[in-house]
Amino acid sequence: MGRLITVADSADPRLADYVRLRDVQLRKSLEAEHGLFIAEGEKVIRRAVETGYPVRSLLMAPRWLDPLADLLERVDAPVYVADDAVLEGIVGFPVHRGALASMARRPLPPVPELVADARRVLVLEDLVDHGNVGAIFRCAAALGVDAVVLSPRCADPLYRRSVKVSMGAVFAIPYARMTDWHHGLGELRAAGHRLLALTPDQSAVPIEKAVWGERVALMLGTEGDGLSSRWLKAADEAVCIPMSPGAMARGVDSLNVVAAASIACYGLMRS
Amino acid sequence: MGRLITVADSADPRLADYVRLRDVQLRKSLEAEHGLFIAEGEKVIRRAVETGYPVRSLLMAPRWLDPLADLLERVDAPVYVADDAVLEGIVGFPVHRGALASMARRPLPPVPELVADARRVLVLEDLVDHGNVGAIFRCAAALGVDAVVLSPRCADPLYRRSVKVSMGAVFAIPYARMTDWHHGLGELRAAGHRLLALTPDQSAVPIEKAVWGERVALMLGTEGDGLSSRWLKAADEAVCIPMSPGAMARGVDSLNVVAAASIACYGLMRS
Repeated sequence: MGRLITVADSADPRLADYVRLRDVQLRKSLEAEHGLFIAEGEKVIRRAVETGYPVRSLLMAPRWLDPLADLLERVDAPVYVADDAVLEGIVGFPVHRGALASMARRPLPPVPELVADARRVLVLEDLVDHGNVGAIFRCAAALGVDAVVLSPRCADPLYRRSVKVSMGAVFAIPYARMTDWHHGLGELRAAGHRLLALTPDQSAVPIEKAVWGERVALMLGTEGDGLSSRWLKAADEAVCIPMSPGAMARGVDSLNVVAAASIACYGLMRS
Repeated sequence: MGRLITVADSADPRLADYVRLRDVQLRKSLEAEHGLFIAEGEKVIRRAVETGYPVRSLLMAPRWLDPLADLLERVDAPVYVADDAVLEGIVGFPVHRGALASMARRPLPPVPELVADARRVLVLEDLVDHGNVGAIFRCAAALGVDAVVLSPRCADPLYRRSVKVSMGAVFAIPYARMTDWHHGLGELRAAGHRLLALTPDQSAVPIEKAVWGERVALMLGTEGDGLSSRWLKAADEAVCIPMSPGAMARGVDSLNVVAAASIACYGLMRS
């Protein structure tokens, strides 16, 4: 059972896990250093706990004690209770969802271990936007992707915004991070995955004609420039989502990465 | 040729079009009252001008005068020049893209006129998130949708964030707004459009088995609750994007509206 502790001072050092949630640079170093991440809102907190992430502490407005009573019963961690003004003072903005949890990260598996039993894998190269990463995990979970591999510099799936946009799907799909960008794809190939590169280049193979293979890793590139030329070259096949013939005339030359990922995952599910 | 006017005071009344760009309530009333919208960044401003929206004024940091010189040559409107501090004082945040334009809105066509020659139409019911509306327009432009119809309460495609996320696609796809939610779908049916309702309900017809028909209007509902029951009932057919069998066990019971729209538009393009 969580211990209820009322907090009246937004500078209380016991709440250090929750400070300045919109300060991306601060949060990155603070979360890495302490091995934590923040879950926000009842649904997401429940998903994080259900999937086995250890709870470091919870922080909520009094009105959330009741809706979360069953969960608080089960966790062994301090439950800090603060009014909205104190909450805002800590995190730096009004917390509409009113309930936050600081969760402990778990060690990620090595890539070979992650993909050993995964038939359909997404590989994300250097995505920078946490919202996009979260949206792609949600898509992947809905459409039957087995695992996600991140390039060394890809944005963090457990960053607050990723978690929120994913609606908790980042807890549901196993993932790992490559340690070596240069040779990282080799580990997928060694595990028997056919490497498909998704590109906006309309001379690539249309995705509905792609040869998926029994085990497939679909590579998605960064928001602006797409996949690196190194990864494009390393692929077994480059595939594209055909645009409408009139799209260029309309000044639209590509889909955003979430839209492209959605269509590609849908194709992957039907492979 | 635009007249260059240097501005040193962020309270200058000539810049009233640009005040507090992140204040959603203020912007909604201000933009409606003056019939304007804001385009942000070189690419989007160029798209807005190319597609014929009249320029009320431009506002930029001095470094943008050169990259935009050809455009400034052609527009007949004041060009306000301000340094970054003044810019931030006006709009309320650091303007990384450094160039803004206040554009005049144009009257929207009545729905029957809009859809008279449109084979593939999207209908958006009460979406609240401007980013989602923008992303759906981008998708629609890339995948060959001819027109978009908005419910009376659907978020504004010309709101700054919609425009930005759409990468200017909101200028490229003709759209109209229904004046009457109750009977609005009747205008589409009268124009010969088959009404397909996209729903997360997995007992609906899988989208790849949908009967598209020669003229089709695909209806998408709001982020949280999906389509209203009135519109669902009014549809000729309810269609769904089949989830992976394991998705529910993973706690993921739906795609977000942009992912769903992407997959549906892709299907629509191939119909």
